Amino acid sequence: MAVTMEQLVALAKHRGFIFPGSDIYGGLANTWDYGPLGAELKNNIKRAWWQKFIHESPFNVGLDTAILMNRQVWVASGHVGNFNDPMVDCRSCKARHRADKLIEEALAARGEERVVDGMPFPEMDRLIAELNIACPDCGAHDFTPVRQFNMMFRTFQGVTEDASNEIFLRPETAQGIFVNFKHVMRTMRKKLPFGIGQVGKSFRNEITPGNFTFRTREFEQMELEFFCEPGEDVRWFEYWRQFCYDWVRSIGLREENLRLRDHAKEQLSHYSKATTDVEYKFPFGWGELLGVANRTDYDLSQHQQYSHEDFQVTVEGKEPFIPYCIEPSIGVDRLLLAVFADAYEEQALEDGDIRTVLHFHPALAPYKAAVFPLSKKLADGAQAVWKDLISEFHVDYDDSGSIGKRYRRHDEIGTPYCITYDFQSEEDRAVTIRDRDSMDQVRVPIADLKDWLREHVRL
Amino acid sequence: MAVTMEQLVALAKHRGFIFPGSDIYGGLANTWDYGPLGAELKNNIKRAWWQKFIHESPFNVGLDTAILMNRQVWVASGHVGNFNDPMVDCRSCKARHRADKLIEEALAARGEERVVDGMPFPEMDRLIAELNIACPDCGAHDFTPVRQFNMMFRTFQGVTEDASNEIFLRPETAQGIFVNFKHVMRTMRKKLPFGIGQVGKSFRNEITPGNFTFRTREFEQMELEFFCEPGEDVRWFEYWRQFCYDWVRSIGLREENLRLRDHAKEQLSHYSKATTDVEYKFPFGWGELLGVANRTDYDLSQHQQYSHEDFQVTVEGKEPFIPYCIEPSIGVDRLLLAVFADAYEEQALEDGDIRTVLHFHPALAPYKAAVFPLSKKLADGAQAVWKDLISEFHVDYDDSGSIGKRYRRHDEIGTPYCITYDFQSEEDRAVTIRDRDSMDQVRVPIADLKDWLREHVRL
Repeated sequence: MAVTMEQLVALAKHRGFIFPGSDIYGGLANTWDYGPLGAELKNNIKRAWWQKFIHESPFNVGLDTAILMNRQVWVASGHVGNFNDPMVDCRSCKARHRADKLIEEALAARGEERVVDGMPFPEMDRLIAELNIACPDCGAHDFTPVRQFNMMFRTFQGVTEDASNEIFLRPETAQGIFVNFKHVMRTMRKKLPFGIGQVGKSFRNEITPGNFTFRTREFEQMELEFFCEPGEDVRWFEYWRQFCYDWVRSIGLREENLRLRDHAKEQLSHYSKATTDVEYKFPFGWGELLGVANRTDYDLSQHQQYSHEDFQVTVEGKEPFIPYCIEPSIGVDRLLLAVFADAYEEQALEDGDIRTVLHFHPALAPYKAAVFPLSKKLADGAQAVWKDLISEFHVDYDDSGSIGKRYRRHDEIGTPYCITYDFQSEEDRAVTIRDRDSMDQVRVPIADLKDWLREHVRL
Repeated sequence: MAVTMEQLVALAKHRGFIFPGSDIYGGLANTWDYGPLGAELKNNIKRAWWQKFIHESPFNVGLDTAILMNRQVWVASGHVGNFNDPMVDCRSCKARHRADKLIEEALAARGEERVVDGMPFPEMDRLIAELNIACPDCGAHDFTPVRQFNMMFRTFQGVTEDASNEIFLRPETAQGIFVNFKHVMRTMRKKLPFGIGQVGKSFRNEITPGNFTFRTREFEQMELEFFCEPGEDVRWFEYWRQFCYDWVRSIGLREENLRLRDHAKEQLSHYSKATTDVEYKFPFGWGELLGVANRTDYDLSQHQQYSHEDFQVTVEGKEPFIPYCIEPSIGVDRLLLAVFADAYEEQALEDGDIRTVLHFHPALAPYKAAVFPLSKKLADGAQAVWKDLISEFHVDYDDSGSIGKRYRRHDEIGTPYCITYDFQSEEDRAVTIRDRDSMDQVRVPIADLKDWLREHVRL
């Protein structure tokens, strides 16, 4: 049976994965805090990305740029002018809504699936009237015309709140990469093709955040900007499209819950030559997990124009040119939510009991293993095993309740291996390892434990 | 000879550690971007902290809370009311300055070292006049009286910029921990004493940021809040004070560049029973690297009062009480700067040449090793070595220039081990490993390389 959002939210809260943000003060509109296990899961996802997209790549290097950037960056990137959501106010109750979402929902209710994003405003106004859309909050049919709403968070740095001190929280990590393109190319002695990736927080003042951690105003991204010669861009777009799909499969997401959606020509941003989303079948429906876009030379050209810096690259036998850029962009929080949903299972056991299991890939699991002393008398030996493992793996030590209870507890948080130190261990210097998914047990010498785990928890 | 800030800034920029933020647009007041090598170094420092303070600790768990929190959090914590810097305006040129810093500098110029922080404003006014302090920008002697300036960055979430939507960028990660205290204790089944740690960005609208990455408006913290019974707090304060000192020593900082500074009673914040800073001798002078504070039950009591949530804990045989809290708080950017400065050396070689070396602890070094084919003809074999290592270690592949040049290049970025694959390697399946610090060489079988590296790069 498919997992529901309610089940996920409840397990996340009760097992220390995700808590409502600022909960003791009644929260703050769809903000979320990652609990001890969620923080580990998130770190593991980010490390897996960095390992695959940066360390193991012969092309790519990492970067870590500031959230606060010069205002001109966002003028050049187009965010000051164009980073807008279409918005309507309800004249009756004053609530604000995203016009495109209202229309999409109304169409969906009539069985029509249609993307409204990018539609001219007068046409949205016409559809709102034609579909007789009511305010979701109060039911009135009295909306203002559709208007622009810029989604960047605005603040002021320095001691005066005047226009010259106005800055924005970055709405994407990508621009930090573009403005450092030349520094990175020079210092790392890179030649085309090469990529620059970074992981970090971005902020978008969404009108209607929602669906748990799927759409939040503060979120984390893993973005790669891959630079190549024009003419090679189509090939590299295909390469990264496949690479991303293969990667989300490799960390455990099931094929039947994934689909590729190529954007139709009329859906493409003005700077994009091609875009593919990898979508995941969340409990609330299909949603974008990541996007791969062919951004052409748009970003570097914009920055060249606004900064008067020369972004051209010289390749032997060719005229200087501005590189093309392929961007695989992944939302960390969305990917974590997908990993969580995909891993969730309630198994009916033979004895009629229900076993809740999170089938995380061992490399992503918060704890790689848990060490159990069979009896509290065995604490010394079991502690020694735990101490030896902990320098390399995140391992829990659990001595409370029956072994069966401890298995259930760790099944529910996705610990792949439970290691029991029993009376026999004192003699044979071996322990029993129980597998979370198959529930099979094997006996492994303590001296081989690290090698055994290393082998079993890698991607 | 001691390293200067100019040398550090130059090496950081030219070797891909730290670039000026938004550089192509003339920067943004003391923001910095971590380049490819700086990003690796920073990740390694954060991982080392997480490993030592969270994973290897039998007491502590991690957390990862949102930057955007409910406004009431900052009312309760005292930041809305008290998080202020004393500020003066120059009436002549309109520049703003921190009054305490102006006074401290004027006193230092007369050979007096004194901390002005916490001094009443009228006394600051008197000292500014008495010391005849001039505006550093224009030289005038015409300051306004000292005033308060709240250092939190303010923004608005949602679609209207009214008071009800006003929120702040967090000025510290600690409050995210306090508001989740009960969630964590319950879901992780913790008993006192235990700690909750997190790593993340914080923001302070400093009037005078400066000294490279030492004082920036956007910065990253590694904070642990350790909860214990009142009466045990003094012992735990001593424990974490020593723990932190030992840890910064263990990651390589030299004893002669470190000192402990216990705050005098009159310097303590009103909520603190004791505070010790660990200071580092930066090229610009001694500066705070980390602080350990005994915050008593101040924070949880404040949140109990404002949220009406019950933060009391019950321990057998005692009346319910609000736990005391010891806080070791470390600045990531400052620690990185200290690691960088501490590692820097210009060595005069026998042939009269200068060798620039970064003596990073191998666990912190951006690259753990670099693989060199002695000749481009040996690419296949050398690439195979690189590919085998890269699944576990961040390793560079470098085939450009003489071996001597490659050594120098990697000395300058702190790569501890250079692995040369030579013609002999094709026969004996072994490589030569050259040590960055001693420049000694050893021959190691390729089959043993991973074990060898694992042994040499761990903390």
